[in-house]
Amino acid sequence: MRATTIHGPYDIRVEEVPDARVQRPQDAVVQVLRACVCGSDLWAYRGESARQPGQRIGHEFLGTVVETGSDVRAVRPGDLVVAPFTWSDGTCGFCAEGLPTSCANGGVWGAAGADGGQGEAVRVPYADGTLVRLPAAAASDDRLLTALLALSDVMGTGHHAAVSAGVRPGATVAVVGDGAVGLCAVLAARRLGAERVIVLGRHAARTRVARSFGATDVVAERGEAAVAAVRELTGGHGVHAVVEAVGTRQSMETAVGAVRPGGGIGWVGVPHGSGAGLDMSVLFRRNITVRGGIAPVRAYLPELLPDVLEGALDPSPVFDLSVGLESVADGYRAMDDRSALKAVVTF
Amino acid sequence: MRATTIHGPYDIRVEEVPDARVQRPQDAVVQVLRACVCGSDLWAYRGESARQPGQRIGHEFLGTVVETGSDVRAVRPGDLVVAPFTWSDGTCGFCAEGLPTSCANGGVWGAAGADGGQGEAVRVPYADGTLVRLPAAAASDDRLLTALLALSDVMGTGHHAAVSAGVRPGATVAVVGDGAVGLCAVLAARRLGAERVIVLGRHAARTRVARSFGATDVVAERGEAAVAAVRELTGGHGVHAVVEAVGTRQSMETAVGAVRPGGGIGWVGVPHGSGAGLDMSVLFRRNITVRGGIAPVRAYLPELLPDVLEGALDPSPVFDLSVGLESVADGYRAMDDRSALKAVVTF
Repeated sequence: MRATTIHGPYDIRVEEVPDARVQRPQDAVVQVLRACVCGSDLWAYRGESARQPGQRIGHEFLGTVVETGSDVRAVRPGDLVVAPFTWSDGTCGFCAEGLPTSCANGGVWGAAGADGGQGEAVRVPYADGTLVRLPAAAASDDRLLTALLALSDVMGTGHHAAVSAGVRPGATVAVVGDGAVGLCAVLAARRLGAERVIVLGRHAARTRVARSFGATDVVAERGEAAVAAVRELTGGHGVHAVVEAVGTRQSMETAVGAVRPGGGIGWVGVPHGSGAGLDMSVLFRRNITVRGGIAPVRAYLPELLPDVLEGALDPSPVFDLSVGLESVADGYRAMDDRSALKAVVTF
Repeated sequence: MRATTIHGPYDIRVEEVPDARVQRPQDAVVQVLRACVCGSDLWAYRGESARQPGQRIGHEFLGTVVETGSDVRAVRPGDLVVAPFTWSDGTCGFCAEGLPTSCANGGVWGAAGADGGQGEAVRVPYADGTLVRLPAAAASDDRLLTALLALSDVMGTGHHAAVSAGVRPGATVAVVGDGAVGLCAVLAARRLGAERVIVLGRHAARTRVARSFGATDVVAERGEAAVAAVRELTGGHGVHAVVEAVGTRQSMETAVGAVRPGGGIGWVGVPHGSGAGLDMSVLFRRNITVRGGIAPVRAYLPELLPDVLEGALDPSPVFDLSVGLESVADGYRAMDDRSALKAVVTF
């Protein structure tokens, strides 16, 4: 089968790899219908996260079950399914607690030895705990299929950010980062009842999406000027909840500066220096909560899926570029130079 | 009147200062019956927190109202009262939200220009928002009076740590730090329903108090060995909630190492390098919440006071040394060399 591999910085290839197949009784094989490129894939693309040459890449996909192991009960061949970006057994203590990302038997697509999402098919360990069935009719609805694909990571991660930040009905929220996760956090914050959502971003196409997702204010400044602007919009105190969806020192400093005493920072940007942006004396004096991490997307799927199916939640506009598998490197390039927000890979 | 002042590192004096008096209509003057020395006073004592020469010191006291301004309604002369370690107006948005430590008109005893708690009397700004009345009968009950004194800071701070760490009924908790705040956090964690409380400490007199407060396990190791011990006690996963009651790099590293994925660190140790102990990649991967800061003790008083009055909550054993005002420097010395846990100052 064909699958995307990474051989070094800026070296994304599509190659023949061994066919995905059931290896253990809990496995299923999913033929991929839609995959996409994640902002976190760009850390590997840019050489900032180490990968073995030839390692698979991509961790967001949905598709059709084509084979199941003898122990699989929850899905069968022919089922349309979405996969969260980590697999999990669904039965361990952490899965029971709603933290499948800490599953004792868990893992992430594209890890060494595992299939990646950007390929024709994926071997899914612990299929019963991992995969979520979708209505068969969704397969013929292109817009819906793309929206459902977002549940594999970006929408669930935006939701995790908003939940972790402590967004409540009536809250004022700031979102640091106008990438796809930040935009999904806008959707999530509004869904959780935020009254006001201030997006920090300067890319017009992205802030337009943010407004269409319910952002009430856009701040184009950066750093201290951005903090000053958020404070001016909020009577000098800052916002109840900040979503930090970047992961750098500056983005975390902005988050700390923008949050109101007693408020929370929900952080989901993969940390690349963000710890240095945490001024502990400020956090201490203002009782600011820092909460977040790798999103337990599987745990959120039962809550978010119905809203997507009903059309009440539609993250599909975060995908602004469509590429075929053989052209997946174009998707990386476009996202890297920010000419595309998020690339969907079609099969 | 006589009051404690600090003139430089290890230079604590008791001097004549201007009498405390009502200066504004919202003020009250409290004649101090009991004060105490806080672990955070030791940062100033050791020269690690800057003070102006001659600045007052001490922020924990209870006593009798002797004078009130014309706008004061909630207390009157003769009332026995306890003061939280910060004053607050009780009416601003932050006070209404339960965060009096961020009160627009707030301040802390011993700040430049304010009276300190370790003196014969204290001018209390915003008396209605700040002071909490106690039953008159408590004045003649030495043990109870000492327990009530703990509500001015150390017990409320221990409670804040436990609440911030997310202690829930059935939780397994670790407490990093066997100082008075850590010990009060043991009490608070048990009060909140913790099933198991592991105290990290090696000072036998303190860990004995910890056990009498409900600690179920004591770990004498430090650093990585302490983390390994906590993990061994908890099936390898760590605890649901960690109280970080020290504020150093090592104590925060221990807290991060000891907490279970999805768990929380409640931190109340005044930060002295603790930020460097936060490994963001670990927090991210394990979805660990970091929450806490300066404790909004005033907001907790209505909840904690009845339990202390009924005897269900008794933090008085954290006081193991009693000194008169003129001997307050002995209290600092004894706490500094760890021969005393916490000194009460009697008048």
